[in-house]
Amino acid sequence: MIGFIGLGIMGSRMANNLLKSGYEVILHNRSKAKADHLLKEGAIWAESPRQVAQQADIIFTMLANPQVVESVALGKDGFLEEFPAGRLWVDCSTVDPSFTRKMGEEALRRDIRFLDAPVAGSKIPAEKGELVFLVGGDEKDLEEARPMMEVMGKAIQHQGENGKGSSMKLVVNLMLAQSMAAFSEAITLGQSMGLEKETVMNTLLGGVTAAPFLNSKRDKLLHGNYEAEFPLEHLQKDLQLVSQAAYEHNVSLPIANVTKEIYGLAKQFGYSKEDFSVIYKFLSARM
Amino acid sequence: MIGFIGLGIMGSRMANNLLKSGYEVILHNRSKAKADHLLKEGAIWAESPRQVAQQADIIFTMLANPQVVESVALGKDGFLEEFPAGRLWVDCSTVDPSFTRKMGEEALRRDIRFLDAPVAGSKIPAEKGELVFLVGGDEKDLEEARPMMEVMGKAIQHQGENGKGSSMKLVVNLMLAQSMAAFSEAITLGQSMGLEKETVMNTLLGGVTAAPFLNSKRDKLLHGNYEAEFPLEHLQKDLQLVSQAAYEHNVSLPIANVTKEIYGLAKQFGYSKEDFSVIYKFLSARM
Amino acid sequence: MIGFIGLGIMGSRMANNLLKSGYEVILHNRSKAKADHLLKEGAIWAESPRQVAQQADIIFTMLANPQVVESVALGKDGFLEEFPAGRLWVDCSTVDPSFTRKMGEEALRRDIRFLDAPVAGSKIPAEKGELVFLVGGDEKDLEEARPMMEVMGKAIQHQGENGKGSSMKLVVNLMLAQSMAAFSEAITLGQSMGLEKETVMNTLLGGVTAAPFLNSKRDKLLHGNYEAEFPLEHLQKDLQLVSQAAYEHNVSLPIANVTKEIYGLAKQFGYSKEDFSVIYKFLSARM
Amino acid sequence: MIGFIGLGIMGSRMANNLLKSGYEVILHNRSKAKADHLLKEGAIWAESPRQVAQQADIIFTMLANPQVVESVALGKDGFLEEFPAGRLWVDCSTVDPSFTRKMGEEALRRDIRFLDAPVAGSKIPAEKGELVFLVGGDEKDLEEARPMMEVMGKAIQHQGENGKGSSMKLVVNLMLAQSMAAFSEAITLGQSMGLEKETVMNTLLGGVTAAPFLNSKRDKLLHGNYEAEFPLEHLQKDLQLVSQAAYEHNVSLPIANVTKEIYGLAKQFGYSKEDFSVIYKFLSARM
Repeated sequence: MIGFIGLGIMGSRMANNLLKSGYEVILHNRSKAKADHLLKEGAIWAESPRQVAQQADIIFTMLANPQVVESVALGKDGFLEEFPAGRLWVDCSTVDPSFTRKMGEEALRRDIRFLDAPVAGSKIPAEKGELVFLVGGDEKDLEEARPMMEVMGKAIQHQGENGKGSSMKLVVNLMLAQSMAAFSEAITLGQSMGLEKETVMNTLLGGVTAAPFLNSKRDKLLHGNYEAEFPLEHLQKDLQLVSQAAYEHNVSLPIANVTKEIYGLAKQFGYSKEDFSVIYKFLSARM
Repeated sequence: MIGFIGLGIMGSRMANNLLKSGYEVILHNRSKAKADHLLKEGAIWAESPRQVAQQADIIFTMLANPQVVESVALGKDGFLEEFPAGRLWVDCSTVDPSFTRKMGEEALRRDIRFLDAPVAGSKIPAEKGELVFLVGGDEKDLEEARPMMEVMGKAIQHQGENGKGSSMKLVVNLMLAQSMAAFSEAITLGQSMGLEKETVMNTLLGGVTAAPFLNSKRDKLLHGNYEAEFPLEHLQKDLQLVSQAAYEHNVSLPIANVTKEIYGLAKQFGYSKEDFSVIYKFLSARM
Repeated sequence: MIGFIGLGIMGSRMANNLLKSGYEVILHNRSKAKADHLLKEGAIWAESPRQVAQQADIIFTMLANPQVVESVALGKDGFLEEFPAGRLWVDCSTVDPSFTRKMGEEALRRDIRFLDAPVAGSKIPAEKGELVFLVGGDEKDLEEARPMMEVMGKAIQHQGENGKGSSMKLVVNLMLAQSMAAFSEAITLGQSMGLEKETVMNTLLGGVTAAPFLNSKRDKLLHGNYEAEFPLEHLQKDLQLVSQAAYEHNVSLPIANVTKEIYGLAKQFGYSKEDFSVIYKFLSARM
Repeated sequence: MIGFIGLGIMGSRMANNLLKSGYEVILHNRSKAKADHLLKEGAIWAESPRQVAQQADIIFTMLANPQVVESVALGKDGFLEEFPAGRLWVDCSTVDPSFTRKMGEEALRRDIRFLDAPVAGSKIPAEKGELVFLVGGDEKDLEEARPMMEVMGKAIQHQGENGKGSSMKLVVNLMLAQSMAAFSEAITLGQSMGLEKETVMNTLLGGVTAAPFLNSKRDKLLHGNYEAEFPLEHLQKDLQLVSQAAYEHNVSLPIANVTKEIYGLAKQFGYSKEDFSVIYKFLSARM
């Protein structure tokens, strides 16, 4: 029996893929409404994280931030105290590496095995089972989780011991931020010189210098509709984590830090809640 | 008869693809030695650009910089005075848009048609006939050159009137510089947090946030061999052109300008002549 | 007899100081109206730059930009052709070093001696005779001009041969731009943490970390009135000259280049014509 | 009786000024050796912070970092438990605002009054009694400490409630970092254009665009001796605190963040322990 806690945009799609592959799944979410369609497919409902722990052999969590992870694991009715020794917790939430290591230690203290396994990919890849798992922890624990991950993702990348999955997630989100901002400046430059916006975009997207994910932002930039898939303020928060991690590990990232501040300026100018690709709108503003 | 002037790393491979497709080609290069292998394949040698103009119906130029283009076109023994009215000159050199427009005007004054058609892609794509042509000029002039371009390239992108090909080339090189620098910072961050360099690279290159061309830099970063395919100082020069163009067209590119200075700092520290991917070595230096 | 050409905000005050010290002055300006108050004080009017050259032993120019300097010196009715061999031209205009050197060569070719002598200081110091002259050219030519400069300024700094005065002016304007922007970010940071704007300003201005000229911007920042003493777009232009000069001389200025782009972004957002201290308003914007 | 804890470069000079003005002072320091010269002047030695608390009416602390402050106040033999209710603690250490507020709360819980009063100025101003106190806390507590502060400093700036002194200190150190880096880039630019280093420095230091403290760095830059008055790594740490504070308070500081990374790069290249003015050496490096 697989436990799954956290049924947001990502989690509900991941749990659904487990169900469709024939796994038995016991679910919990703060709001039960989000579980309804999965219960119809045969999933079992648990009233609390603790109750998940009583029945599951392995628990996946996919939660919004460190505070929620901590509460679900260690709070009142948290699952960690109840989870039998020797079982495996796989946290897919995006959190900072030091928090991850702390959770790993909390698990270890209770003889629970732990993997940090944040995912690269958003709504559509989650739906299609095409996520990429960035995993920190023991190889053999990963082997145990692998069949389930393969149902939810297309690739599983072992990065090292606990914390390394979260570390790699920061690296990936840095690339995401930089690629989007560079693309935005490049289009802005092209337009300023009289090139057609759409031609510039097509040329870049058809070439080898643009990151593949930028194709998925094409329509947003073209039509100026920045409904959030990944809100700018979340990415800017990750960039601050990047800045802090680089400081702590004694490396300098001049470009990343400027990029961070440009997203920050866009936030100051009112774009916090929109998709982070709105950075194009900010940078190409003409008044 | 196709005229081809400029047989460097790129030009010799482009001319060779024309020959292999059965075109008759008349060549000129500053040093004849570089033409030898093409002459064996049946190309004709011209002693000067002027002599190319006497026999060619269309002339392609692939030269190092504006000074050389100007000299070959307009200097003593330049081809432009001798080229019969109505013929077509296709300049594939990477030069700045204002120089390109000036060449277009010089051509027009002599009733010569002109396309600026710089290419995206370096040595290997040139060899395989997989370049991307970024073209500025009249649509019908492009139609005339298209069959030859198709032999040398895999894509032909019409960007607008004269100068727009060169403008787009600046945009592409900006993306090149940014993607390489962002990748370098990301790997540096990952390593500082204890991730394996090769794992970070593989994870990023296997995902959707890294530009495809970065695959071709993988071995350089892994083995620390930065023999130049595209020397850092050339890219840094292009970034200064980007900065100047942005200034003239009233747009601000904060990230591009920092990136420019980081390449500039690497140049100051002795990396001018190495491949621009050496920016990784500079950014990850630990002393 | 001293010739003085260019009676804008700066030039009219400088010429006035010469007059008040008892010098005979012959004036020219595009619009005669601006000379009226000086003519009442005893200055002589010349209908053209050429006419100035016929009567002056030394000519000072204080003009808006390279184009105007070139036109006044070398255009129709320009003074350089008419100026007797051996005389001295002192150009106080702020122009780029390469233009200055070109003017020096034009003068030399006609046996005219030349000093580039841009000034640090704006309206009030010009009025009080408290400018700082940054001088490029021969020491003995400077000695000849020194008594007049002492009437208009409080300090005369010899920087080296022709062009070096203009080079130093770029350095000074870089400091101006950086100090203003740093002050603006510092106040913004302080306010964000709940400090009083005025207290932060007073503390910084009363300490050793703020450039003295910032005192003169205090009221603008406090009352939000950014009427131009030095328009933002002019300073941003100088920063682009700085960027270009640094590139040409192989040094990297990462902070200067970011600062340039932040002024550029402020320009893009509509602040071109306001005093450059408006950068505070831009950086502290909250929406 | 005044208690004084922490006799480093700053503290020993501050305590000495109190003694010389006739105050009775009881001292403690981790190493007693540093107190010897003050004991000869009549100061009293305390074996522990706790013992200071038993005899002092007011306690000043001047310590290296938050960890030491916390240990001296709250650790084993810490002074806070022993200090009679109603007395006043003045912390002059440079720490981050959130730590300061925490100390304020710890004091309040024990009915101890608290001022955060970090100082601007280093070794020489400390010696001459010319520090600037940046004070957070109640106005009437400040009035009580004022006579003593006046003996140690030349200015006392009340910034608001507890925490605001520390906040203002961050602002001051940001200005310090920016001014030094801007000055370094400006000299580098000047030298690259052929100006004499000393002339550039003199011109800037004699003008209105350079912060007054830069005069004290003149000899270091001229003679290349970067013995630390304020080590680069400490300033870079403060810049990371600035970056974090700006993030938390939703303002963007693009220039500050680049400056931070340039100091960080200098650290990476081996300049951590030298005076922060060594940034000039890093930026002007030519290889």
